[in-house]
Amino acid sequence: MTKPKQLWATKDNEKSELQQRVEQFMSGQDVILDQHLFQFDIQASKVHAQGLQRIAILTQTELNQITASLDELLSQFENGQFVLDQTFEDGHSAIEYFLTEQLGDLGKKIHTGRSRNDQVAVATRLYCKKALLDLKQVCVRISQVCLTQAEQHADSVMPGYTHIQRAVVSSWGLWFASFAESFCDNAQLAQQTLDWIDANPLGTAAGYGVNLALDRDYTTEALGFARMQINPMYVQNSRGKFELQVLTAFKQAMLDVRRLAWDLSLFTSAEFNLVKLSDLFSTGSSIMPNKQNPDTVELMRAQYAKLVGAYNEIESLLSLPSGYQRDLQNTKAPLINGITESLSCLVLVPELLSGIDICHTDCEKAIEPAMFATDKAVELAREGVPFRQAYQQLKDNYQDLASRSSSQSLQERVSAGACANLKLSEMAERLENA
Amino acid sequence: MTKPKQLWATKDNEKSELQQRVEQFMSGQDVILDQHLFQFDIQASKVHAQGLQRIAILTQTELNQITASLDELLSQFENGQFVLDQTFEDGHSAIEYFLTEQLGDLGKKIHTGRSRNDQVAVATRLYCKKALLDLKQVCVRISQVCLTQAEQHADSVMPGYTHIQRAVVSSWGLWFASFAESFCDNAQLAQQTLDWIDANPLGTAAGYGVNLALDRDYTTEALGFARMQINPMYVQNSRGKFELQVLTAFKQAMLDVRRLAWDLSLFTSAEFNLVKLSDLFSTGSSIMPNKQNPDTVELMRAQYAKLVGAYNEIESLLSLPSGYQRDLQNTKAPLINGITESLSCLVLVPELLSGIDICHTDCEKAIEPAMFATDKAVELAREGVPFRQAYQQLKDNYQDLASRSSSQSLQERVSAGACANLKLSEMAERLENA
Amino acid sequence: MTKPKQLWATKDNEKSELQQRVEQFMSGQDVILDQHLFQFDIQASKVHAQGLQRIAILTQTELNQITASLDELLSQFENGQFVLDQTFEDGHSAIEYFLTEQLGDLGKKIHTGRSRNDQVAVATRLYCKKALLDLKQVCVRISQVCLTQAEQHADSVMPGYTHIQRAVVSSWGLWFASFAESFCDNAQLAQQTLDWIDANPLGTAAGYGVNLALDRDYTTEALGFARMQINPMYVQNSRGKFELQVLTAFKQAMLDVRRLAWDLSLFTSAEFNLVKLSDLFSTGSSIMPNKQNPDTVELMRAQYAKLVGAYNEIESLLSLPSGYQRDLQNTKAPLINGITESLSCLVLVPELLSGIDICHTDCEKAIEPAMFATDKAVELAREGVPFRQAYQQLKDNYQDLASRSSSQSLQERVSAGACANLKLSEMAERLENA
Amino acid sequence: MTKPKQLWATKDNEKSELQQRVEQFMSGQDVILDQHLFQFDIQASKVHAQGLQRIAILTQTELNQITASLDELLSQFENGQFVLDQTFEDGHSAIEYFLTEQLGDLGKKIHTGRSRNDQVAVATRLYCKKALLDLKQVCVRISQVCLTQAEQHADSVMPGYTHIQRAVVSSWGLWFASFAESFCDNAQLAQQTLDWIDANPLGTAAGYGVNLALDRDYTTEALGFARMQINPMYVQNSRGKFELQVLTAFKQAMLDVRRLAWDLSLFTSAEFNLVKLSDLFSTGSSIMPNKQNPDTVELMRAQYAKLVGAYNEIESLLSLPSGYQRDLQNTKAPLINGITESLSCLVLVPELLSGIDICHTDCEKAIEPAMFATDKAVELAREGVPFRQAYQQLKDNYQDLASRSSSQSLQERVSAGACANLKLSEMAERLENA
Repeated sequence: MTKPKQLWATKDNEKSELQQRVEQFMSGQDVILDQHLFQFDIQASKVHAQGLQRIAILTQTELNQITASLDELLSQFENGQFVLDQTFEDGHSAIEYFLTEQLGDLGKKIHTGRSRNDQVAVATRLYCKKALLDLKQVCVRISQVCLTQAEQHADSVMPGYTHIQRAVVSSWGLWFASFAESFCDNAQLAQQTLDWIDANPLGTAAGYGVNLALDRDYTTEALGFARMQINPMYVQNSRGKFELQVLTAFKQAMLDVRRLAWDLSLFTSAEFNLVKLSDLFSTGSSIMPNKQNPDTVELMRAQYAKLVGAYNEIESLLSLPSGYQRDLQNTKAPLINGITESLSCLVLVPELLSGIDICHTDCEKAIEPAMFATDKAVELAREGVPFRQAYQQLKDNYQDLASRSSSQSLQERVSAGACANLKLSEMAERLENA
Repeated sequence: MTKPKQLWATKDNEKSELQQRVEQFMSGQDVILDQHLFQFDIQASKVHAQGLQRIAILTQTELNQITASLDELLSQFENGQFVLDQTFEDGHSAIEYFLTEQLGDLGKKIHTGRSRNDQVAVATRLYCKKALLDLKQVCVRISQVCLTQAEQHADSVMPGYTHIQRAVVSSWGLWFASFAESFCDNAQLAQQTLDWIDANPLGTAAGYGVNLALDRDYTTEALGFARMQINPMYVQNSRGKFELQVLTAFKQAMLDVRRLAWDLSLFTSAEFNLVKLSDLFSTGSSIMPNKQNPDTVELMRAQYAKLVGAYNEIESLLSLPSGYQRDLQNTKAPLINGITESLSCLVLVPELLSGIDICHTDCEKAIEPAMFATDKAVELAREGVPFRQAYQQLKDNYQDLASRSSSQSLQERVSAGACANLKLSEMAERLENA
Repeated sequence: MTKPKQLWATKDNEKSELQQRVEQFMSGQDVILDQHLFQFDIQASKVHAQGLQRIAILTQTELNQITASLDELLSQFENGQFVLDQTFEDGHSAIEYFLTEQLGDLGKKIHTGRSRNDQVAVATRLYCKKALLDLKQVCVRISQVCLTQAEQHADSVMPGYTHIQRAVVSSWGLWFASFAESFCDNAQLAQQTLDWIDANPLGTAAGYGVNLALDRDYTTEALGFARMQINPMYVQNSRGKFELQVLTAFKQAMLDVRRLAWDLSLFTSAEFNLVKLSDLFSTGSSIMPNKQNPDTVELMRAQYAKLVGAYNEIESLLSLPSGYQRDLQNTKAPLINGITESLSCLVLVPELLSGIDICHTDCEKAIEPAMFATDKAVELAREGVPFRQAYQQLKDNYQDLASRSSSQSLQERVSAGACANLKLSEMAERLENA
Repeated sequence: MTKPKQLWATKDNEKSELQQRVEQFMSGQDVILDQHLFQFDIQASKVHAQGLQRIAILTQTELNQITASLDELLSQFENGQFVLDQTFEDGHSAIEYFLTEQLGDLGKKIHTGRSRNDQVAVATRLYCKKALLDLKQVCVRISQVCLTQAEQHADSVMPGYTHIQRAVVSSWGLWFASFAESFCDNAQLAQQTLDWIDANPLGTAAGYGVNLALDRDYTTEALGFARMQINPMYVQNSRGKFELQVLTAFKQAMLDVRRLAWDLSLFTSAEFNLVKLSDLFSTGSSIMPNKQNPDTVELMRAQYAKLVGAYNEIESLLSLPSGYQRDLQNTKAPLINGITESLSCLVLVPELLSGIDICHTDCEKAIEPAMFATDKAVELAREGVPFRQAYQQLKDNYQDLASRSSSQSLQERVSAGACANLKLSEMAERLENA
């Protein structure tokens, strides 16, 4: 293929240095990002062509030709024969060029009744649906690993902290189960968000529809959307709006990764020494021979910040009146980068969690008599002492507690969800229905 | 009631100026904000007491006394007899003081098996559920007004813009319908978010449960929660996490308000002059006698920024390890302020929209022949001219289009959702099921 | 004073409930926030009147009357006789009302040649200058405390961490000195920012100047500004712009408070146990009798988030064309709240730092032989062994290091700024010139 | 060169797929970003070697060899012979590899007394200084173009807007001058920020200095720093802190670009039609043959969002205790991308501004009689009518104003900075001293 010229370029001209800088500024990394959208754009183009055949804009033969050509394009893209790079203005027009190159005038028909605006919208929507499905699946996997670990370590003693201060006796079972439930929620949120955006924008052109009775019911079904996004203007107005919501689903999962990474960062310090991580997740120092640092965990903690950046970047674009504005093109990079980088982190979490090696002895050593005071206060309350009075009585008065055992304390923590009653099977059940 | 001392103050002492500054710094506006949570805290306290009676910590008589006293407190709070102000440390401990003041030792029993941590969590959760319900309802109302307006103005000509440039003929019906569908989505999101957080945190104490078989199934049902939030540690870890998600639901609605306000800000300028607003929504200038400005609309546009602030503030707190940290207390102000201010804006939108006065003559005047070029290109494509060729043919060649009429153009825009096919009843139906 | 009506209200009318909700939405907390600006507004009003006298709009007698009346207003405001509350539209128009109430027609002259727009701008500018001066002073104070502590604890051993992992021997002197230098930079930034905004906006009216030869050179000097902000349109366009920069100066200081609070939060844990804080800075738990938590430190860590919220809120407003838009009014609340809350935290830091009680024994215990490996590697390099080779040689080979002493290690750390060479006097000198 | 192994890899091993994913996650685009820092890293490495020679760690001959080798590396990097890509862990270790490859054991000496931590810090600091200088220069250039345009169009009539509503007569001179003063401030801020960070971090190792009397005074001077960053721990703690401040300097300039782009976006609409842009800055539509859109201006407006993302991403990382944490590595991408993208936009602004074509006829047509009301009110005030009374008198009473001329109004706007008194030479003078 020869380097295509822009669709609307009216004359060929030598480009000044300034012109090149303008073009460079305007395109940026756009076409590279389109590699993430290309398969979805091709998929939607095929369905758009089917729709055109159904209203007699294309004949069956023409449709067959276009379909074959689009299949060919996808195949070439996947095997690297067709490279989507800066020689194209963007992935969306690349499709039209490929078809025109292969099919001549017939290729020029593919854009009938559609605009790059709805082409971008439908490809992005399909991409987001896939991303949310990936998110859901990895959250389910993480939750499952946590459930397995929680079960295995249900009775392993662990100091329970509030304010990063030793508070009460707790268990590794409780700790793992907290992430199990959290990632179950994250999986559900991914699904809900997917449902929320599961609407077909194809067939709305530049935001005002067209004077063609496009068969949008057909394309909605053929593309696997749950419903049609009806209003053409809303399709444009939902750019950024939907992207933000997709990113919030990722943010919730990554927020929990940040907390998890904080825990492990502290727990692997010499001071806490509650766990050891697999070698895979640590590295050395360039000047200090003695160091072995939990770098991977720190970068996991850091990863949430990328989503903060991506989300705020998109949000900052969205102070605009109705209708498409070019500003919206800049939602693409933060959306795709935010998703890609989050997934590259999330897929490591199951191995990280399953490889945790608990330092049982140090965990036990961290239990001090005062950490039984709450148990005792509740016992007194159970016997009829008003709780606030029991509380005052126990204050700074821990000598009698020294003989208590951690495992006993765990066994008596029977309130639903607590150490003696983790309710893992309820969580597992909910996870299956997520 | 006398001014209560702190629960954990071991001795009364004169407070130094520094101490006062520390306390002032630590409490801030906290107790004032608790006025928003107080009714929910009382409600949850009643149910907690019922739960304690079910496991024999309280007798039926004691429960009755506590219930009566809590009802009394609510009633005094609502009629202003009981003022929740800075004489209390916070609303949560105010309840215990009131009960102790009224019931003596019995009052000191209410805190058995619970912590301020789960007390805060349950009151906040109930508050958020109510806020999301309010959000949903106002979104439904806005959507309904839009549907009514869209139907009434279905055939009213309006210039359609992209890039704030005149693009094609459009209709006010399409414009109103775009917001109808958008606010229908917003209503649905409010409901989904409500579903997502609809889990009972009561009964998890300070994050590690208690050595009491609290009847959490009962309190879950009695408080109207859809499910139990099982893991006590997760209850604490979900602080901030859930608040963020609640705010995103508000953000989506307010993002659309921002776009709406942008439209109206432009449309009311002398240059566009497409609509007039009700006098209610404009004000004058202190120096320029001639000015009548759409201030309310500008402040509506500005309102989204408060949510940006609130959301980012909460998010910025959440780089913490597991378990309760005092930092989390600071999620309260942005949550409550963000919700309150958003609702105060959203409730004005129905009147704003229903009071819009369209300047039909100026709308018609804004239609130029070139705005029919896309129609014509599609017509040519329908006749078999490859679309890209038709497009090139039309470029800068608009003389033949001068005779076209706007209403004709609207009538031919038949693709689903477009001006001739707004599908308002489909939207209305979806709205009913939101 | 009777309740004033709005300046531009053309007729008195009964307000509908909707109208009241609109007004409530539009004014918000505005007039309450104006309490922070009021003294500056009065100050600028006096100088504006002086300027009007210099160009013969006011006679000397009129000026004297207005000056006396403004002095009276300030005095009444300060002693609580004049209350700036919701009966006024805002603080800016309250001044005109007071003057008109006291002086009749003469009061109506004060607004000649000015707009509320430049009145707001000049009061806010003066307020920001004062805030930055306060910021600078508290940063200097913090830096001084750090220098004192660094000198006192120059030889106190402390484990040096990277990745929250023990790395090398370090000293409390180094730790305190790090904050000394940081807050010295913060003081300098406050001063630079003050210089940057030190420009007089008074005399630019609503953004287009006036047909009066206002003596702006005079008002610039009389108000103590370093220069005139020349362009009237820029005065309006700098709203938000300058506020953001003021907040970044506060952010830098509060960012260091966050890091400081993180250190102390970890160091006060049972696991680290490197320091104890004054009782003043900790509190108990409502359910766990045994807890004493560093709550104040946690809330200090949390405080930065308020600035994140404030900054992002203002920033989110600023996607607007040139000229005043009502949106800009909403810069006021985040600016004032951000500043007020930051200062309320910063003033506590000197006491916090000077009250730190170092646990020397535990600090010493935290030093392990491997922490001397870097020292040894550098010694080998000094003797000619290529550093990378020395590094490899030391790896996992620490037995020879067990005999080394911490104090020896500190004494040999002679590179400029390091433990044996803290350069505190250089810092003190720079601080004096900040 | 052969593919280098990691500095601290103790054994060569086959990497599992998981290991590869971990490494991919950890390195990300890091080494690619290092291309921006590489020349500065080489520069600092040369000076570090000079410093080592001054304290006899290297002989003069060794220094000469290292210097020659580093010069060779820079030259190979610049001509593309040496490619910094993913075969290296990062740019910082690439230098050591290159030296070791070329010089054997001597190459292994370069890291004596330094850590990658201070190597990163010094390269980044030099990069930021250069970026701020570039920023300052482009701001000066923009301001100069604005001054030229303001002078040329000093008397060209333009409607003056507040609230996007026609307010008073104004001039293009005033509009251009507003950006002239704004970008003069931006240039000054760039310089101030440069001064603030102009401190040498080299010689602080991993945050605790070294047991070598490194000649930091020498390296400070040789690298052109204004002062030494004294405290080693502060060097690490200032990571992110300084980056944020650098980005705020860029934000201020880009914030003005956003406002400028908003103005031009509105002014080029058919409704306003106040200016035409050069063809260079507009493009067409894929479906609407009639469209010519100001896309470049829209993308300029959008560009600020990237800085919002970058700034928030870095900020979100910075909730950490003292000392280096790996999280800080992730400050690099947003810093470099934010700067690079901002500069790519800013360099286009001078051409954009100088190519503006004013539609004088439409500007004149936009002037309505009511826009003279403020002039008239001030005239009455000048004659002794209390301003507020004059204001009321003029309200809705504009018939007498119809005979006024725009140019007369401009000539009488004599307050400093206003249309008849733009004070361009004062601005030019301040710009020269920026």
